[in-house]
Amino acid sequence: MRFLLVAGSTDTAAVPGLSAAGADPDLRAHTPAADAEILTYGQPVRAPVVPVSPSGCPTPAAVTRAVRETLGFDVTVVDGGLAEPTAAGTVTVGARPGGDVREADPVPTAPGAYEAARQFGRKLHEDELFVAESVPGGTTTAMGVLRALGEPGAVSSSLPDNPLQQKREVVAEGLDASGLEPGGAVGHPKRAVRRMGDPVLATAAGLARGALETDTAVTLAGGTQMLAVAAMLRHDGVDRRLSLATTSYVAGDDTADLAATADALGVDATVTDPGFDAEDNPGLARYVAGEAKEGVGMGGALALARRANVPMAEVRGSVATVYERLVGETEVTS
Amino acid sequence: MRFLLVAGSTDTAAVPGLSAAGADPDLRAHTPAADAEILTYGQPVRAPVVPVSPSGCPTPAAVTRAVRETLGFDVTVVDGGLAEPTAAGTVTVGARPGGDVREADPVPTAPGAYEAARQFGRKLHEDELFVAESVPGGTTTAMGVLRALGEPGAVSSSLPDNPLQQKREVVAEGLDASGLEPGGAVGHPKRAVRRMGDPVLATAAGLARGALETDTAVTLAGGTQMLAVAAMLRHDGVDRRLSLATTSYVAGDDTADLAATADALGVDATVTDPGFDAEDNPGLARYVAGEAKEGVGMGGALALARRANVPMAEVRGSVATVYERLVGETEVTS
Repeated sequence: MRFLLVAGSTDTAAVPGLSAAGADPDLRAHTPAADAEILTYGQPVRAPVVPVSPSGCPTPAAVTRAVRETLGFDVTVVDGGLAEPTAAGTVTVGARPGGDVREADPVPTAPGAYEAARQFGRKLHEDELFVAESVPGGTTTAMGVLRALGEPGAVSSSLPDNPLQQKREVVAEGLDASGLEPGGAVGHPKRAVRRMGDPVLATAAGLARGALETDTAVTLAGGTQMLAVAAMLRHDGVDRRLSLATTSYVAGDDTADLAATADALGVDATVTDPGFDAEDNPGLARYVAGEAKEGVGMGGALALARRANVPMAEVRGSVATVYERLVGETEVTS
Repeated sequence: MRFLLVAGSTDTAAVPGLSAAGADPDLRAHTPAADAEILTYGQPVRAPVVPVSPSGCPTPAAVTRAVRETLGFDVTVVDGGLAEPTAAGTVTVGARPGGDVREADPVPTAPGAYEAARQFGRKLHEDELFVAESVPGGTTTAMGVLRALGEPGAVSSSLPDNPLQQKREVVAEGLDASGLEPGGAVGHPKRAVRRMGDPVLATAAGLARGALETDTAVTLAGGTQMLAVAAMLRHDGVDRRLSLATTSYVAGDDTADLAATADALGVDATVTDPGFDAEDNPGLARYVAGEAKEGVGMGGALALARRANVPMAEVRGSVATVYERLVGETEVTS
């Protein structure tokens, strides 16, 4: 089993109000690079900051890292268009940072990244892959891809109050700039992700596609962004059922309705509740309050912990230890 | 503990007769990328070939990987100027493939790579680092650096018969082209490596320098190329004793006299004999015959195995398993 993190950036993340993946827009640009470092090394190395939301919710990378410190799974970071340098080792597939989805052609590297990632996915000798993402603003670009493909699904949010109306407006503006109707890219996932998505979606879909072609088991480790990946695979002719693993926070987000979209796309969703409400910890409490919800494969990591029969109380203790290392101010008191 | 592999390329490797790190010059260009993949994944992924010498000696990456499969240590690959794409995740420090050491300025990226690697080494939170290399033709460029620094040491070879006279001629030509006398870069290691070395030496020295500045224990995992790194550190003002771990094949190479150079440079050398002569295995027999000798941190990996009390017979069995996977034709019969 290998955990692939696709990390990248877009200018869509700088649209005010869309993303909580960083304390402010300038720091948000460092979030994917920092997430890759936290997953790889347990803390930021080159990145100047531990990603937190504007209200202080620590990055879900800490949860995935905590599970990794328990289980010891292998990680490979794939550069899905990183805007800032990272000290994490990265595999290059030609993805460059994406533009603003309201532009006509925000992700010109998407088709090439998809194909290069597909080749990489084909050649990896693994029985099983988990594919995860870190891209601020990623639910908006996921909505863009779903709309371009004519899929009805809604998307979740890293904010407690999902700015769905704003996302719809941004996506409508992007479709207009790209000369696309909703559904205008049916059967053309590379066109959809190039015009309306982000380089991380393109790369993640390519990885999954290539791995599935060689009968590697693939789990899409994430929430509604990974549903957009699933939709891309469907529109690229992948027929078999797909697997997704996410958190109870995404599954419980009524604004997204993950279950309905998963069902419509033939995706088997594994939902794991880390039970953060059982702890008196300010970082974990942010998740209970509906922040972050998912990212950096958090739901996939929790599924791996459950599969390995690691009690969630132990996972929570590990997360608190990682938080302590990262921000030095949280503590499990129960 | 983390194992850092610096992998890169130079045009010096294409000089006929200097290197056995690849079956022919065209395949040799893929050796560092393939070594990085073997260490990371256990087999080549993007690289089109398993590196072997012209006579069929498999890459020492297989030995390091075998030890890693037993001990499970973390690996980070640093791009020390890779000429071919690799599926291994790599950290970027700005190194580009080196030119031919007979040119005036073969490694213009060396000073920048040294400084970027130094910053990376400073920021890595590890108690201990092993620094290894994969760069075909690397003993010739190591000799170039030693000469430019005025250090007398000889260098070893991946060939059973060390082409020392040819190396001396190539180095003399390079000094001439660079306008340097022997010793013309005393106290200027970045100048020495830029004019007479390779990007891997620059990167490895920077990593070691930065790590030592933050009191991380550093083991230079390699043979006479790592002595060139040690010389660079000395000429950059590092006073403390340095540690190196290599194989009995390098230590037993009379043409190199590792012990004398290590002594002169204040380097404590750990020498490990994997006992390949105890096995009836065609791959291992090549090492006994004096091929390859070292590379990809083989001597460092063997030292780690010994420190963990893994019997060398078990290491040899693991190496045979990895060889079998890589080339499918070797077998331990004893």
